[in-house]
Amino acid sequence: MGRLTGGDPSLLRRINSAVVLHALRDNTPLTLTDLSRITGLSRPTVEGVVDDLMQGGLVVEAPPDEGEARKQGRPARKFRFRVEAGHLLGVEIGPHRVSVLLSALDGRIIGAGSRAVSETAEADERLDRVRHVVADVLRRTGVARGSLRAVGVGSPGIVEADGTVRLGTALPGWTGLPLGERLRRSFRCPVVVENDANAAAVAEQWKGVATDSDDVVFVLAGLSPGAGALIGGRLHRGFGGAAGEIGALHLLGREATPEALLSTTDEPLHPLDEQAVAKVFALAKEGDARAGEAMERFTRRLVHDVAALSLALDPELVVIGGWAAGLDGVLEPLRRELSRFCLRPPRVELSMLGEAAVATGALRLALDHVEEELFAVERTVTARR
Amino acid sequence: MGRLTGGDPSLLRRINSAVVLHALRDNTPLTLTDLSRITGLSRPTVEGVVDDLMQGGLVVEAPPDEGEARKQGRPARKFRFRVEAGHLLGVEIGPHRVSVLLSALDGRIIGAGSRAVSETAEADERLDRVRHVVADVLRRTGVARGSLRAVGVGSPGIVEADGTVRLGTALPGWTGLPLGERLRRSFRCPVVVENDANAAAVAEQWKGVATDSDDVVFVLAGLSPGAGALIGGRLHRGFGGAAGEIGALHLLGREATPEALLSTTDEPLHPLDEQAVAKVFALAKEGDARAGEAMERFTRRLVHDVAALSLALDPELVVIGGWAAGLDGVLEPLRRELSRFCLRPPRVELSMLGEAAVATGALRLALDHVEEELFAVERTVTARR
Repeated sequence: MGRLTGGDPSLLRRINSAVVLHALRDNTPLTLTDLSRITGLSRPTVEGVVDDLMQGGLVVEAPPDEGEARKQGRPARKFRFRVEAGHLLGVEIGPHRVSVLLSALDGRIIGAGSRAVSETAEADERLDRVRHVVADVLRRTGVARGSLRAVGVGSPGIVEADGTVRLGTALPGWTGLPLGERLRRSFRCPVVVENDANAAAVAEQWKGVATDSDDVVFVLAGLSPGAGALIGGRLHRGFGGAAGEIGALHLLGREATPEALLSTTDEPLHPLDEQAVAKVFALAKEGDARAGEAMERFTRRLVHDVAALSLALDPELVVIGGWAAGLDGVLEPLRRELSRFCLRPPRVELSMLGEAAVATGALRLALDHVEEELFAVERTVTARR
Repeated sequence: MGRLTGGDPSLLRRINSAVVLHALRDNTPLTLTDLSRITGLSRPTVEGVVDDLMQGGLVVEAPPDEGEARKQGRPARKFRFRVEAGHLLGVEIGPHRVSVLLSALDGRIIGAGSRAVSETAEADERLDRVRHVVADVLRRTGVARGSLRAVGVGSPGIVEADGTVRLGTALPGWTGLPLGERLRRSFRCPVVVENDANAAAVAEQWKGVATDSDDVVFVLAGLSPGAGALIGGRLHRGFGGAAGEIGALHLLGREATPEALLSTTDEPLHPLDEQAVAKVFALAKEGDARAGEAMERFTRRLVHDVAALSLALDPELVVIGGWAAGLDGVLEPLRRELSRFCLRPPRVELSMLGEAAVATGALRLALDHVEEELFAVERTVTARR
């Protein structure tokens, strides 16, 4: 992978480098004197570290403030963190769509793109689609591929630590796919792969409805629902990465399948036909009786899933997301039923990020990866290079 | 609370004291030279710390080995940790029984006692029973009450951090009871109160079937089941202390109550009548058809609960406990059904500690508390005294 820090790779030097970068990232431009005061490092050490960081492209001299420039004598030089020194991608690979978000090192989104893909598309076709959308976003924003420092990917299924999909029934050819490895060939930078609901949970805490909560369950409601949980602010993946894979939860104690649950005819819906589902939601709103009954069955299942998760985990907040529209009707029944079943019912809110949740979480995971490289001493000590 | 460390309470001195104690606890008797080598502290520092610890009663001089004694000249003095310098209690307060375990500071059990109590007994009567059993155990073992350094208590219900029972429907008068405060009046030492299933999970990892697992769910199977989870080796209490309070889980999606589920007549069983349940288990083993059906209903519920917990948490190991006998028949159906419902089924084992699980876990929590006081520098820094 690309080295972000220049100069001497000795541990102490890297720690000092991380400390100085941290100070620059969290502040307006700083002088060497400021940096020495904030970090507690000696002036010569700070000078050496800043020199290295400038050579590595992570720090630049900032232009003097107008006020400063007007003062007598030469103002002290100021330095800032170059957020544009690297870029990150957040990628959602879903059943019907791949979508991509691009940011600089501060995490602010500077580009986005998405493209439909058939739910029957094989893995190769789906990955091709990803590459096309990425190329398109990079071209439109003028960001060089070599500037990418990490790529985060959110996708359905149980994902191993190395980015292999251990089990993923929602997408054809997904089970066993070495997804991380396949994508690393296109990107020459670290690729972090995470389950989609887990990524969405991370996103809602970063930029969504859960910014004030450390104990959060995100439920990706859908015909094949999944959940992601943050416990004490950290993603809970489970022993085998399968925590929150609640597809079978509602089958406990009864026999219906989700497709039958949501159908308004005698034919079950296709497991991933979200358009058909959106139509059912819309019909129900218009007062269609059969659609209303289907909505009710859907809500019952959601209540069941959320109640079971809440009883097991006792989160502070449950976030419901996954479908762009039509979910607002489920909040009231959910809150009412949870207060019946849970000794301590959680707060329930709709996702603020909607369709962008998974890609946003994937972007955050890429940013976490780079920040660990740049700022975390602990990680520096054990980094595999 | 009683101070365990003598001498100067300055932070550095307390850190050094903890480091030396740690070395003495984890080894056979050591000389001052050994201690200086192991801890990296100077010889005079070690001498000062050991003097203080001897004054505080936590360290004594060990008699010389026979071999040493026969050598020429005076052998170097050796020191050992006085495990008998303090004692701990682990207490289970259950619907039918209170039981007590006593140990010295090494956690080895040196006394035990228990006594039946009616499930209709009010809180005062139940706490009286606890005091009697404790007094009896102390008397029989000759341990002075003043030697108690911490008391751990496991009890049904949602327990707040200060030891108040927020909600506890299994015992009369339990909801709202300031259980920790009430017991602290009897024991002038810290009292740690924990939910019973949580305590049992801790116990199985300490001395039971889960010593090799950090991701464990303990299911206290019963007519009113509860669960405790260790995630990454740490107890997961949930945002409001209600994680694993799964009493209502099986009601999701159907209407039956647990009492009706297990009855072999048209009358439901009393919610906490475990004798009646044991009888049903025994009859089922003898081939009684109605008892067999009741067993089947019980097993279905257990499967449902365990599957839901496993889907939500993805533990490595599920431990089933709570009833002394009759549970061995549920293992096979549990394993079979979990492999149907879970993408990554956990290992399932019976509790090794059986009826002693809750009191054993309570004892471990008391020991944790004392060890934090004695050994943890982190805790020392923030200790509220």
